Amino acid sequence: MNNRRMIIHVLGEIFLVEALLMLLPCIASLIYRETVLGAYIASALIVATVGLVFVLRPVSDKRIYHRDGFAIVSIGWTAMSLFGAMPFVFSGEIPFFVDAVFESVSGFTTTGASILTDVESLSHASLLWRSLTHWVGGMGVLAFLMVLIPVTGGGGNLNLLRAESPGVEVEKLVPKSNSTARILYGIYIFLTLLLFVLLIIGGMPIFDAVNITFATAGTGGFGVLNSSIASYSTYIQSVVTVFMVLFGVNFNLYFLIFCRRFRDALRSEELRAYLILFVSAVLFVTLDVYFDGIYESFGKSLHHSAFQVASIMSTTGFATADFDKWPEVARVVLVGVMCIGSCAGSTAGGLKVSRVLLAVKSAGVEVKRALNPHSVNVVTLEGKRVKSEVVKTTFAYVVIYIMIFAISLLVVSFNRMDFTTNVTGVLATLNNVGPGLSAVGPTGNFSAFSPLSKLVFISDMLLGRLEIFPFLVLFTSLFRRK
Amino acid sequence: MNNRRMIIHVLGEIFLVEALLMLLPCIASLIYRETVLGAYIASALIVATVGLVFVLRPVSDKRIYHRDGFAIVSIGWTAMSLFGAMPFVFSGEIPFFVDAVFESVSGFTTTGASILTDVESLSHASLLWRSLTHWVGGMGVLAFLMVLIPVTGGGGNLNLLRAESPGVEVEKLVPKSNSTARILYGIYIFLTLLLFVLLIIGGMPIFDAVNITFATAGTGGFGVLNSSIASYSTYIQSVVTVFMVLFGVNFNLYFLIFCRRFRDALRSEELRAYLILFVSAVLFVTLDVYFDGIYESFGKSLHHSAFQVASIMSTTGFATADFDKWPEVARVVLVGVMCIGSCAGSTAGGLKVSRVLLAVKSAGVEVKRALNPHSVNVVTLEGKRVKSEVVKTTFAYVVIYIMIFAISLLVVSFNRMDFTTNVTGVLATLNNVGPGLSAVGPTGNFSAFSPLSKLVFISDMLLGRLEIFPFLVLFTSLFRRK
Repeated sequence: MNNRRMIIHVLGEIFLVEALLMLLPCIASLIYRETVLGAYIASALIVATVGLVFVLRPVSDKRIYHRDGFAIVSIGWTAMSLFGAMPFVFSGEIPFFVDAVFESVSGFTTTGASILTDVESLSHASLLWRSLTHWVGGMGVLAFLMVLIPVTGGGGNLNLLRAESPGVEVEKLVPKSNSTARILYGIYIFLTLLLFVLLIIGGMPIFDAVNITFATAGTGGFGVLNSSIASYSTYIQSVVTVFMVLFGVNFNLYFLIFCRRFRDALRSEELRAYLILFVSAVLFVTLDVYFDGIYESFGKSLHHSAFQVASIMSTTGFATADFDKWPEVARVVLVGVMCIGSCAGSTAGGLKVSRVLLAVKSAGVEVKRALNPHSVNVVTLEGKRVKSEVVKTTFAYVVIYIMIFAISLLVVSFNRMDFTTNVTGVLATLNNVGPGLSAVGPTGNFSAFSPLSKLVFISDMLLGRLEIFPFLVLFTSLFRRK
Repeated sequence: MNNRRMIIHVLGEIFLVEALLMLLPCIASLIYRETVLGAYIASALIVATVGLVFVLRPVSDKRIYHRDGFAIVSIGWTAMSLFGAMPFVFSGEIPFFVDAVFESVSGFTTTGASILTDVESLSHASLLWRSLTHWVGGMGVLAFLMVLIPVTGGGGNLNLLRAESPGVEVEKLVPKSNSTARILYGIYIFLTLLLFVLLIIGGMPIFDAVNITFATAGTGGFGVLNSSIASYSTYIQSVVTVFMVLFGVNFNLYFLIFCRRFRDALRSEELRAYLILFVSAVLFVTLDVYFDGIYESFGKSLHHSAFQVASIMSTTGFATADFDKWPEVARVVLVGVMCIGSCAGSTAGGLKVSRVLLAVKSAGVEVKRALNPHSVNVVTLEGKRVKSEVVKTTFAYVVIYIMIFAISLLVVSFNRMDFTTNVTGVLATLNNVGPGLSAVGPTGNFSAFSPLSKLVFISDMLLGRLEIFPFLVLFTSLFRRK
């Protein structure tokens, strides 16, 4: 770490933002006259105090270096999640601290996995707090901070945004300045409002609409009912389906549309791959579910399959049906799209379509080179030549991802749950999806795991959301210091 | 393909070797006075005829080019497996052709997965034929051919051996001449004989000893009893454990020992990683099994755990216990070592320790480079710098491996078997292990799958044994022709 004072300063700003966000559940508890008000006020005060202490320390050098960006993001997200767990503990709604942190991390990382067996018993304030963490976590808390407070220049913002949503091709997928960051956030707010209005038109209660909107926009997946989205109307389910797909699209494409560069937006290779993948997956699942006789009509099969594929692929994790009971092809397809996820630069998780696309294309080029060593083969993505370093970093990412998966699976296996639960539980948290299959399926939850396993899932959610690298930087920095 | 006539010529030689090999089951059926004799004689005659027709075609250019080696290996292994299925069909012991091919491919690829529900009902001739295919498949049929018939020079042998056991670092792991190929095969025969003698000393019946020796040496896994190795003495089980580990070691290390270069052999990075992995896996499984109360004593837990880890890691697939009933940590560790497999240049399957080692090391170097773009980081293996191309090919291999896994899993899921069966069934065939978990566990078999799924498993076994590339070359060659 190069500029420790500045790291502390920005962390302070993050905490102040979090304190500010906690005012929303405070308002909710005032409206619904809930006793959890005290817990939220106390939490907000603690976070605000820490934030102020951090912010008020004098900083001479305001530059944020490459490594500092990673440090801020990894420490910031972890601390933010720990603070975010406080109201759950203080209010007694989730008394066990590890459980509360699990729920908070699941919120900020837009995973939507829960240790709660009965969501409906939560206060309105806490339900809103869970959904709000999804919404902020979706676009990234530093992106949010950047919209609120213009951080001084020197490429600092870029280093922060880069660290928070690394994606594949850093140069292209990350906004280059504060103004683009603001436009992107503007688009995010616009889509969020649009979804809210459409849900209200569908007759959804306002409180539900606010929460479902936040959770959909952030591709989170926390609901306010134990049945997730199953009890809402077909219209509402369809609207949510469309918006889950929309929030899985790279926001830079919306930016291009905003700039009236429609052809550039539609020409995106990642978008095409994303849509082809989505349509194919829906087709497979629909046919499998229909011919298995799960639903009486083809239309109903299509409706629920489209919802479920959109939900899992966008790594939201809402459910309209218990897809754990679906036949095996549908289940395998859902696990597959769970790993791939959506586009880079979206609010979704997973390996990301562009990364998978790049890995597959590069593998093809390597095969060609192995067969014909004299041929010149170049990997291209979005019509541009991809540097050899980017290819190798992408490959390395896949290998590290598999290693994290394997180690997590080993530790989680100590709980004596079945193989399917363990495998999909790790995948559902590492890819920020939420539900998996079997015991962690849409009707299940993560409460039965040991505290150690919950810590593994917590780590997986954070590693998945920040795409591993920021934590590797932090650990190597700490290691070097010694 | 550059030299089609020479490809056909070598294929003919392969078929003649196979006809020769079929004489052994003929002898067995004479000894045990079995009616399957006719089936084996007929099969041998057919293969020999095809072989003679192929061999007798005049060849002017005797050179074997890079691509030709891959073509010979991929076509040769496929054809050899099809011919090898004939006696099963002719004798009526496995009447359904796809099943017979499954069994034959499983034999030659040293997988040991079976569609038979009752192995003990097979004739002695067929049991011996199954084991013999393991033994020949283990070191490679072309390596065997090279020992019998010295193919004319021009790097032709090298191209053939390269194609049959590509490994990671081609230059180092493949014998450079006919004489080294012979020494390697000599070591193989020596270890085989040693194992046979040790089993006979243990009081094993001669017929059982021959079969178990062949299956262990080739790291295959076909047994002669329905209970696999469970009913034999602890001494025999221990001998088999040690030899499964020994046959998982890179044969080039035995060559170094043969040349009295002991220090070079023991310094091998892959060997160390292999042994560390083996000991760690045994430790995990032993403790898990012991504390779960599967066995009353620690010694018994260690015995069965060591056997099972050796069996799965060497991709042999023998069983002394129903490890599908073992607790989840043991099961996950077994699935893990199933994927990694043993050393390159051994008779075992899997991704290979050196490839995994190289992928992990390269990923580490990439992380370092991403964190500090100006640093110079080089990947080394066995004390030597690994070329960037080799790193990329290794990464590409992992990606293609995952793609084959995913596609296979999708197709196999249509059988409506459970997730664990499908996942481990694909892994057990792709890594040439044999048994997986659940319905394809040590007490189960692959008979319940549809013909389509069996074809997928057959492809996976061949792709796994030949490490994918030869088939990719073949397909691209055929594609180009059009």
